[in-house]
Amino acid sequence: MKKKVNISAQDRNQLIADDNRKLFESKGVFTINIIGSPGCGKTSILEHMSNHFDEQFAVVVGDVKTALDSDRIINSGNKNAFAIETGGGCHLSAQMIQNKLKEINLDHLDYLFIENVGNLICPSSFDLGENLKIAILSIPEGDEKVRKYPTLFIRAAAVIINKIDLLGVMDYDIERVKQDCRVHNTEVKIFETSAKTGQGLDEWYQLLRDQRKYLFSE
Amino acid sequence: MKKKVNISAQDRNQLIADDNRKLFESKGVFTINIIGSPGCGKTSILEHMSNHFDEQFAVVVGDVKTALDSDRIINSGNKNAFAIETGGGCHLSAQMIQNKLKEINLDHLDYLFIENVGNLICPSSFDLGENLKIAILSIPEGDEKVRKYPTLFIRAAAVIINKIDLLGVMDYDIERVKQDCRVHNTEVKIFETSAKTGQGLDEWYQLLRDQRKYLFSE
Repeated sequence: MKKKVNISAQDRNQLIADDNRKLFESKGVFTINIIGSPGCGKTSILEHMSNHFDEQFAVVVGDVKTALDSDRIINSGNKNAFAIETGGGCHLSAQMIQNKLKEINLDHLDYLFIENVGNLICPSSFDLGENLKIAILSIPEGDEKVRKYPTLFIRAAAVIINKIDLLGVMDYDIERVKQDCRVHNTEVKIFETSAKTGQGLDEWYQLLRDQRKYLFSE
Repeated sequence: MKKKVNISAQDRNQLIADDNRKLFESKGVFTINIIGSPGCGKTSILEHMSNHFDEQFAVVVGDVKTALDSDRIINSGNKNAFAIETGGGCHLSAQMIQNKLKEINLDHLDYLFIENVGNLICPSSFDLGENLKIAILSIPEGDEKVRKYPTLFIRAAAVIINKIDLLGVMDYDIERVKQDCRVHNTEVKIFETSAKTGQGLDEWYQLLRDQRKYLFSE
């Protein structure tokens, strides 16, 4: 007689995420899960990468509706961009990524960037199989977001503070934000960037190269 | 024998929301559910109201963690501000509101404003018992949010486009945004505001007075 095993949606997600990660690592693909509010600049940074990050990479973009963001990335010069419409869902799941991988040739890729649905809360709790989870903040959002949405900042290994070109225009205590990030993760890497001017993105690209080299060094 | 009836979380929420609405209406309290991204200006508009909206109102503020926003409202001069920490939850529920009402004296109040958790997705699907659901957008978020997060804009009776003082500073096609809003709701009321300069907020306050008068006119 077959034994029926019930597992929670969260546990099921974790099993598939672990499978995804094994697949990525077997192909030498370093995978990044990008989480941030609507409009923080996730897509703008990926557009900048199309012309300034020389490694081979693909992008998967999750949105409740539309393929606007993957179209932007394709138009910026990277044909390897794929949309997932969640149809109402507030985060990507490992299953959605696994399904999308059928369309993506991982051979010869160095990196896979997954732009999660614009949301500071729900995406933080679902592993997709990534090697690095990053949080993107932006100056116009205000400087108390780390305190108000802690879950993401406990789990993110790196934080990008984007739209840094607006630092003088708006009240924003950036030292306080960095301090709040370090409360949740003493080892967090913090980058101050502007997707508009390119400021600070070279340091972020260097971290990606260092982390990939470290993971695949043996 | 007692009959056990299982109902979904969504249905249970609706039953409590209906109870909340009955209570609000019996007390003459017009209730507004405010939904928008992190940092769009929900609290800043409520701060402005403390000094510019003469009616009697209380505010309930939902956040994953901290009472920072209700503290801001209290400091701006309205002592009737109450925090709900969801402890990880991505939206307020009718039950959370019902629990919080034990601390709030509804007698002599004209309005109750509920600032939902900063999130464009999950709060849209949970009725709290409000009479009016409003969406707040802001210029720095970018002008494609209505297309990417349609659920909220199907349900919101009013949309505030905030941080309008940044319209000249950033690329933002405001006519396109208004058109997108009207695709989802032909009757939607749209306001262009700045919590910083006060621009457009008088029109918003007038709508609140008109809607309350209309609801309680008999």
